[in-house]
Amino acid sequence: MFTAVLLSGCGVYDGSEIHESVLTLLSLEENNIKYHCVAPNIEQKHVINHINGEEKSDKRNVLEESARIARGKISSLDELDYNQISSLVITGGFGAAKNLSSWAFEAENSTVIKQVKKLIVHCIDNKKPILSLCISPVLISKTLEKTEYNPKLSLGSKNSKSDYNIIDMHKTLSNLGVETHDCSIEEICIDENLKIISAPCYMLDAKIYEVRDNINMAIKKLKNYL
Amino acid sequence: MFTAVLLSGCGVYDGSEIHESVLTLLSLEENNIKYHCVAPNIEQKHVINHINGEEKSDKRNVLEESARIARGKISSLDELDYNQISSLVITGGFGAAKNLSSWAFEAENSTVIKQVKKLIVHCIDNKKPILSLCISPVLISKTLEKTEYNPKLSLGSKNSKSDYNIIDMHKTLSNLGVETHDCSIEEICIDENLKIISAPCYMLDAKIYEVRDNINMAIKKLKNYL
Repeated sequence: MFTAVLLSGCGVYDGSEIHESVLTLLSLEENNIKYHCVAPNIEQKHVINHINGEEKSDKRNVLEESARIARGKISSLDELDYNQISSLVITGGFGAAKNLSSWAFEAENSTVIKQVKKLIVHCIDNKKPILSLCISPVLISKTLEKTEYNPKLSLGSKNSKSDYNIIDMHKTLSNLGVETHDCSIEEICIDENLKIISAPCYMLDAKIYEVRDNINMAIKKLKNYL
Repeated sequence: MFTAVLLSGCGVYDGSEIHESVLTLLSLEENNIKYHCVAPNIEQKHVINHINGEEKSDKRNVLEESARIARGKISSLDELDYNQISSLVITGGFGAAKNLSSWAFEAENSTVIKQVKKLIVHCIDNKKPILSLCISPVLISKTLEKTEYNPKLSLGSKNSKSDYNIIDMHKTLSNLGVETHDCSIEEICIDENLKIISAPCYMLDAKIYEVRDNINMAIKKLKNYL
């Protein structure tokens, strides 16, 4: 049994947020939690020049780019044996909102890709804990929309500095049936019933070591569930 | 004044090693050392599929890819004001041996790109400390070849597990005038005269937290020099 770490590319603006992903792997190793990285074998929505934010004409594959973070130790999400996973960690970065779902473009009306939806539903149905970092709780919100579940989730706090409008984003999640909670970078949100942990990380203006501490706190809670 | 962090792309097989780079930024922040990332604005030597090691036909720019690790906060190496830098950190990954030099292809007979050579010479001439991670000491070796300097450097230890032939690589460095030292993942090599610190990191088989500890040890030494 291992923790599946779901990546969505390599780079905050079109893939997985690199710092969050590396610090997640670090924390899992330090806590002696066996893990394996997975990502969907699909084309990225687009490629962003990370210097100026402009879209490039390149085509890139989500699995191949995620492999950069995993140093080649990664599997395609469609080959993941659900029986082998104890839990799931979803890292942040726009990849979650662009490649794993269409949230970045359609928000409340977006869709989550089938493989990811299936994996989240598997975890919820089997009481396997999920740790959802940064923007990735939007995937859980959309997946559990119109179900019996009303997950408790957080994307950050209206009281913390952020480049994003946390109030508006929480309102959108509320419309999908989510019970939203404000979390500073020193806090995590815990849904004890569904065993879902969310940690705001780079949704808020944060130093790298604050993101590290936020993730450590979340991984320790995840470990308690295992 | 700040520490320049020299990156060479984004991904161990064709750019900067991602874990080493993130853990370097983390350690610099934790130690209150002001830093700024730089990379040359040049095309990558090639692009490697990090799942199977195969070369792809894509073209990528070293500065743009490095910006993924730096979350956009990066400058072109040719715009770096040398008067502003207190010290230099060079991260590892094949990018150092493929983009910043031709070491991966020509080893002892390789060349270091002019901008990088100039930066290293500036630091040595001005007694500004250099921290060189993983494979990157090859850049210092080639830059200081046939000079009055015989730097003390390490690429790892013959007594540690590694995917690379540390004995052969150290022999090659010796041919270039380097005094090589064996360093395990728990050690760093220090040239007190030239203020050069080398740390083996992923040249050796190491856990992420061992690389983190190796980098922390090296950054603390760098801080002593500042």
